[in-house]
Amino acid sequence: MSEDKGLLIVLSGPSGAGKDTVLKQLINKNENLKLSISATTRQPRSGEVHGKDYYFISENEFMDMVSKDNMLEYAKYCNNYYGTPVMQVNEMLASGKDVILEIEVEGGAQIRNKCPESVSIFVLPPSLEVLSSRLHGRGLDSSEVIEQRLVVAKNEIKSADKYDYVVINDSLDKCVEDILCIISAEKMKVKRMKKIIDEVLSNE
Amino acid sequence: MSEDKGLLIVLSGPSGAGKDTVLKQLINKNENLKLSISATTRQPRSGEVHGKDYYFISENEFMDMVSKDNMLEYAKYCNNYYGTPVMQVNEMLASGKDVILEIEVEGGAQIRNKCPESVSIFVLPPSLEVLSSRLHGRGLDSSEVIEQRLVVAKNEIKSADKYDYVVINDSLDKCVEDILCIISAEKMKVKRMKKIIDEVLSNE
Repeated sequence: MSEDKGLLIVLSGPSGAGKDTVLKQLINKNENLKLSISATTRQPRSGEVHGKDYYFISENEFMDMVSKDNMLEYAKYCNNYYGTPVMQVNEMLASGKDVILEIEVEGGAQIRNKCPESVSIFVLPPSLEVLSSRLHGRGLDSSEVIEQRLVVAKNEIKSADKYDYVVINDSLDKCVEDILCIISAEKMKVKRMKKIIDEVLSNE
Repeated sequence: MSEDKGLLIVLSGPSGAGKDTVLKQLINKNENLKLSISATTRQPRSGEVHGKDYYFISENEFMDMVSKDNMLEYAKYCNNYYGTPVMQVNEMLASGKDVILEIEVEGGAQIRNKCPESVSIFVLPPSLEVLSSRLHGRGLDSSEVIEQRLVVAKNEIKSADKYDYVVINDSLDKCVEDILCIISAEKMKVKRMKKIIDEVLSNE
């Protein structure tokens, strides 16, 4: 691992845990942190821009990338494929940027296997009750759909212990602060500081 | 490891790296962080208080504690023994306090062996030149003594790569912030969050 390389950060957590808002704030507060853009085989929705919201590619292109090991992780939802193109991530990391991926727990497991030096963070809601009331508060889903989401959430939370860190999204500011702290601390780990130690020792 | 137990933090770094000032600020800014009081066989200096500055004990008492494995680490300097009584540290940790020990690199190695769950942080000066000018600036030592201190410092810095984290004391505020971040991040590591994950899953 080069010390100048950026950190690869995986962020997961159940729907309603507030990951999107947390991500926006993280990117705003830390200039060195970049969001990876996913590739998908689904059709662009109105207003979505290729290369900004997603890379919109055909299923042939997608499966070709998978077979060439050019997807860091991928999964299928509602008959569409979603994945993280490896090249884009590697280029950002090589230029020293930290890259954050918001992915499901299954994609998280794929990345931990492929990139053991990545840092994985699970965003936990303070309680299932709070999660339920957040989902109701969004007004996006019927009570039935919310019940299903809570079952999925519970299963996802059972995977939280596979992550390196767990942060609780009770207060948004505190949660963002916590994640920024984790990123800072990871950069002070001795494996990333060896070059600096050598520099101090060699420059008299 | 109990999750409610505090963290044991080892802080080392060469003389002149600013550890004492950093420690004072850390204790002021983090109420849960406590400093361990060392035991020593040397005579108290004017104004020093037993149980506050040091535990002043006889050499017999000291060696008795060592033989009973009641010292977390110890070393001899200038014909006097200095050590960290294990009971005091364990009581603070058990009550949930985080305990920070400022010790030499040899003591640091002893603690890493005895307490693998401890977190060790090395405070690095930005350069040997800065370290030298800080030692001159203090006006405490002759040029000759400072030269000796720099040789010792260089040897100590060679042990920095045995620590978990390395922080650079360039700006005092930044260095204190960095260490507080490390402590926060360590507390969000998944091994310390399992109880909270279970609580979220069980309370519906």
